[in-house]
Amino acid sequence: MQTSLDTAAGALSLPQPYLLFLGDTTESGFAKTAYGLRDWAPEKCVGEYALPAAKVSTGLKVLTPAEAAAKGARSLLIGVANSGGIIPASWIPALAEALEAGLDIVSGMHVRLSDVPGLAELAERLGRQLIDVRDPPRNLLIGNGRKRSGKRLLTVGTDCALGKKYTALAISRAFADRGVDVDFRASGQTGIMIAGGGIPMDAVISDFEAGAAEMLSPDADPAHWDIVEGQGSLLHPAYAAVSLGLLHGSQPDVIVVCHQPGREQMLGTPGYAVPSIEEAIDLNLRLGARTNAAIRCGGVSFNTSHLGEEEAIALMASESERLGLPVADPIRGGEAFARLVDNCLA
Amino acid sequence: MQTSLDTAAGALSLPQPYLLFLGDTTESGFAKTAYGLRDWAPEKCVGEYALPAAKVSTGLKVLTPAEAAAKGARSLLIGVANSGGIIPASWIPALAEALEAGLDIVSGMHVRLSDVPGLAELAERLGRQLIDVRDPPRNLLIGNGRKRSGKRLLTVGTDCALGKKYTALAISRAFADRGVDVDFRASGQTGIMIAGGGIPMDAVISDFEAGAAEMLSPDADPAHWDIVEGQGSLLHPAYAAVSLGLLHGSQPDVIVVCHQPGREQMLGTPGYAVPSIEEAIDLNLRLGARTNAAIRCGGVSFNTSHLGEEEAIALMASESERLGLPVADPIRGGEAFARLVDNCLA
Repeated sequence: MQTSLDTAAGALSLPQPYLLFLGDTTESGFAKTAYGLRDWAPEKCVGEYALPAAKVSTGLKVLTPAEAAAKGARSLLIGVANSGGIIPASWIPALAEALEAGLDIVSGMHVRLSDVPGLAELAERLGRQLIDVRDPPRNLLIGNGRKRSGKRLLTVGTDCALGKKYTALAISRAFADRGVDVDFRASGQTGIMIAGGGIPMDAVISDFEAGAAEMLSPDADPAHWDIVEGQGSLLHPAYAAVSLGLLHGSQPDVIVVCHQPGREQMLGTPGYAVPSIEEAIDLNLRLGARTNAAIRCGGVSFNTSHLGEEEAIALMASESERLGLPVADPIRGGEAFARLVDNCLA
Repeated sequence: MQTSLDTAAGALSLPQPYLLFLGDTTESGFAKTAYGLRDWAPEKCVGEYALPAAKVSTGLKVLTPAEAAAKGARSLLIGVANSGGIIPASWIPALAEALEAGLDIVSGMHVRLSDVPGLAELAERLGRQLIDVRDPPRNLLIGNGRKRSGKRLLTVGTDCALGKKYTALAISRAFADRGVDVDFRASGQTGIMIAGGGIPMDAVISDFEAGAAEMLSPDADPAHWDIVEGQGSLLHPAYAAVSLGLLHGSQPDVIVVCHQPGREQMLGTPGYAVPSIEEAIDLNLRLGARTNAAIRCGGVSFNTSHLGEEEAIALMASESERLGLPVADPIRGGEAFARLVDNCLA
């Protein structure tokens, strides 16, 4: 899988490969970003670096910033989160050490790197970059709706946080395994770190939302596929603006609808039921047709992590029958996922 | 008509009344903002002030900043535009004079007031505010979808720039004339100047779009109406994100669809046909029902400025018959507009 964004003029582009920084993290739940990078972009990771108090590891080679720089690393990437999204004072010497070793720093934390005491001055003096992945590019344009060359697939959802990034990554890998020329296009911060670039679509000013999505998946060879990571849901009372701008600007040929069976309430908005899969399909096709009349649904991606194997497979089979579409869990893979991928390419 | 935003915690609130500044403008087309303020918010305007080279006038009393301040003015409002959205050097002495006279400055120009040479330092020294109406408030929250008390009407459109602000203002005035407790809620810069507050919805970060709209029309008395100025169109390939966030967050009880008969192409996006009125109604009702199941269409507002009186009236009558809804041009007013207003209140 190629994940470079060389052709996406204007999208973020991160200095790679990375040295993954784990801070003093003791719970693996907070190291999801590092694990995601190890699993999806191992070629972008030269190793890991942690403080003595840390109790998590990616299993990658342990390297100091200087050792990583000698192996070609170009940035220290903060691969952990914490509950406040802050950068504790205990991390600062390690971040400074990275800058001194010639590495840039990449962060998706809430706090901005330039607000960490002393860091901006040091980076300035050393000519190093502090890159906050939450910041969208500054050269965004208003959308123009022009049909672009190449093929596009967008993952959409019945709700937030149910597997749109994972599904897009898995489809990208499966396309590549079939010899398809494909790029994963990241629209959220973890995806951007994995891809090495992209645009954090939820941080874009509304007027530029569709234009940013147009920039994210630029003109390409007619046989080339962009697999665009979706955001939110057209039916989410808080985030639908992000979803619609991304849908219009991505002008997908194919959508894959992501869903978590059994989830009843929309995330963060009490009283809002998760819509039916059919409603999500129908609404995405209707609105997406505005910028690509040929849009179709390639299948449905289930997040069945809470179900047993047998139960999950039976449910997906019956839902596939009911909907007349492939239904698969990309984490489980198998025949069902192969059928979904085939149908997207059909 | 009340237009205060006292209850809209967090929305912009402009220091009023204004002294309207006309710069050295020679073409009336560039003074639309000043004319709009004179027509829609005369109680907020103590007078006008222009440079000797100006050839436009609102007809309001000519006052120096010091005279205006003595009459209670609290800000100098830049009521003109120019093709670059810039503030020419020739205006700076007048702006400085206003600050010296104790007035704040309100601007909707592209250039920020704080980027005008010397202005920020002077304002700082005098303790005066420089207010760029394009800047959204900083304390926005993510939407929560909670149903709020009070009634809401949102103007929506088949395209951009065809009368959504004017229609909302005219309906606000008509509601007030019928004794209804009503506020005009502004979502664009000219509207914000007229209302004395509001939120520039197209400048809000996408993730906060619906939340900003929720803030714009807060809980109110059950009999109170907010008339919310719409933006863009759900069917515009560039701006639909703004429109959907505003629709979800406004949770309108009533929409009025604005349309310009005879316009065939969407603004700024060649190859995109203006959708039918029925399509705009249907899509707004379907998507709006997500946050207010009782949403309905109160009627259709036509911009018939390019048609003769007889032709316009005949067209609106036949379209009203065809759609089964009141159709009126608020600029022409008359019986048709009264029926539209009645139906919104029904």
